[in-house]
Amino acid sequence: MSIPRSVYRKRIRRAQELMRENEVDAMLILSLENYRYFTGDVRKQPRMLIPSENEPTPIVFESEREEVERRTGLQAKTYRSLPEMLSAVISFLNSLEKDTPVVAVEMEFSTPAFLIERFRMANPHVEVVDAKQIVSPLRKIKDRYEIELMKKAGKLADIAMERAADLLKPGISERDVALEVEYYVRKKGAERLSFPMFVNSGERSLWLHGMATDKIIEKGDVVLIDIGPVYQGYCADITRTFVVGSAGSEQKRAHEAYLRMQERVIERIEEKKNEITVLELERENSEFMKAMGYNGLYVRGFVHGIGLGFEETPFPTIFPEDLRETISKGMTLSVGHSVLSIKGAGGFRIEDTIHVGDRVAHLTNFDRKLLEVG
Amino acid sequence: MSIPRSVYRKRIRRAQELMRENEVDAMLILSLENYRYFTGDVRKQPRMLIPSENEPTPIVFESEREEVERRTGLQAKTYRSLPEMLSAVISFLNSLEKDTPVVAVEMEFSTPAFLIERFRMANPHVEVVDAKQIVSPLRKIKDRYEIELMKKAGKLADIAMERAADLLKPGISERDVALEVEYYVRKKGAERLSFPMFVNSGERSLWLHGMATDKIIEKGDVVLIDIGPVYQGYCADITRTFVVGSAGSEQKRAHEAYLRMQERVIERIEEKKNEITVLELERENSEFMKAMGYNGLYVRGFVHGIGLGFEETPFPTIFPEDLRETISKGMTLSVGHSVLSIKGAGGFRIEDTIHVGDRVAHLTNFDRKLLEVG
Repeated sequence: MSIPRSVYRKRIRRAQELMRENEVDAMLILSLENYRYFTGDVRKQPRMLIPSENEPTPIVFESEREEVERRTGLQAKTYRSLPEMLSAVISFLNSLEKDTPVVAVEMEFSTPAFLIERFRMANPHVEVVDAKQIVSPLRKIKDRYEIELMKKAGKLADIAMERAADLLKPGISERDVALEVEYYVRKKGAERLSFPMFVNSGERSLWLHGMATDKIIEKGDVVLIDIGPVYQGYCADITRTFVVGSAGSEQKRAHEAYLRMQERVIERIEEKKNEITVLELERENSEFMKAMGYNGLYVRGFVHGIGLGFEETPFPTIFPEDLRETISKGMTLSVGHSVLSIKGAGGFRIEDTIHVGDRVAHLTNFDRKLLEVG
Repeated sequence: MSIPRSVYRKRIRRAQELMRENEVDAMLILSLENYRYFTGDVRKQPRMLIPSENEPTPIVFESEREEVERRTGLQAKTYRSLPEMLSAVISFLNSLEKDTPVVAVEMEFSTPAFLIERFRMANPHVEVVDAKQIVSPLRKIKDRYEIELMKKAGKLADIAMERAADLLKPGISERDVALEVEYYVRKKGAERLSFPMFVNSGERSLWLHGMATDKIIEKGDVVLIDIGPVYQGYCADITRTFVVGSAGSEQKRAHEAYLRMQERVIERIEEKKNEITVLELERENSEFMKAMGYNGLYVRGFVHGIGLGFEETPFPTIFPEDLRETISKGMTLSVGHSVLSIKGAGGFRIEDTIHVGDRVAHLTNFDRKLLEVG
């Protein structure tokens, strides 16, 4: 799908309005996510400066100028060495004609710490502020082009989980499940996975995070599989819990509680959108889990935003201030981020990607029951 | 291969010596690379504190404690929520009993900027310094266990390039070459690729960075392929340049110049190890390229360190102070990082991973000639 250039121009103009409201003179774009959001172009280690007035300036390696200008419709500054790149940034900042320009810089999950440190060292007269205040209000509400891409990512997540379910059998390694599923979903059109797949089996299903190791899947294992395929930059996220063999009653009860919690959250989002905050949802969840007898076995952080970032605003497990975010129409969310971790029984999660419209639309739809395989 | 626990203990003791020499009270480990280097354990989003005296403390999710303690031989602190994790860090720092503890924190390529910002906000009484001064002197000189793993990574790089050479034909997309090669090399034992493969074809061979897109490989394209397989955490890096069809005389000349430059650098490293700096090598290269008539077409930054990090100390394109590093016995280096970018002819690179012993050993060995395919 090709997004018209006017859409990117509109995003830039809205960012510039927010920059002026927040007295920010310029924004330095360092992440592919934001570069892609504002230009549609895809480039490794992109650099772009957006002033609060006038056109943005991509800063690119000399040999890439022609293509960047053709793809973005913007005029680029070029460099042939690191010092030239730095001086392009500095001369742009000087052109703002401010004694202490205020520059918004991304401090996201994917922004390398050293870049910010180096930027500060090279530009001691600049006041650095977090670009989140400019970018998040835009990115957290998806436009119709973004929803289309998210839907396609969701479909890829479903077929990836289907493939994983087919592969899960005693004797296969976690790593081989992950490799075969990744190959399959990329072959079907995923650009990449937004994070290395989790195939957490046995004791490892209890983990907060995950990965796929050489461990062999055994009969009796609970296996928690989390997959995040990316379609044209947009991420979907799906998690399902499997039992290799037959599920026991404690496992069934835990899974059922988790599913009920997920369904409740989605109902509440549908009823209370534009009114309820992430914190209120989280509190209701904690109460629910307590009532189910799972106090202390469930980590807060059930919902997070998803889009160009596989975790983006609202993202309360990393940015506690996001607990105050109101769940709003237009958001795309991952619901089911936290694990219910019960020693002896296993770890349980059901995670889906949803779009908050007038109704809630599920973008991932693979069977939500506790899946017995092998 | 299993590395004895005594090796990890020795690495920790040496880091603690450097901490005391540099008046650092504790080091906060946030990256998998350093966590793996000091413990041998593999974990997503690891957190560990190393005091300048006494044993390190991993900070882990409650359900992972048992496994972490078994794998590291260290006693862990546990958490069940983000606030608990933060308070575990803070109580550790308080236990140092310093008014202004000096804490070394990683500010590497892979350290997310927000983590450092949050750590500073949560610990305003702490003096944060860069952990590079503690970690780099250790990690840049490889021990025999590391060399063995690097050799295996190098072999995987060679077979991956062989597979790429087999696949390159007019009509295949850059993306499909990348997908098939990645699947193959992971099947053969690579844990992952350290960065998404470059399959830069046609005009894109001129680029500084790279990726693999939907572009179809065409007859006449120069194709630059860069692959970084990882074996048990250790990275190798190989780049080769292909012509789809027959190479022209300008292409042959450029490739020959690049190869000569690479050979010269390796000879100089063998002769002058423990004496020559990265800057001196880079200067000689620039002179050589100027003499060849390629002034301004070649970006500095020919050599970088490689190991657990796919780019690590010395890493002069990102950390200019690394230009002062002396090329030393025990280093593993990638030689051939920069592209010779000639409009009309194409981009040319030959990159190999080497070990600086008494002699230089090539860890990657795939054919270095300009490869005509299709």
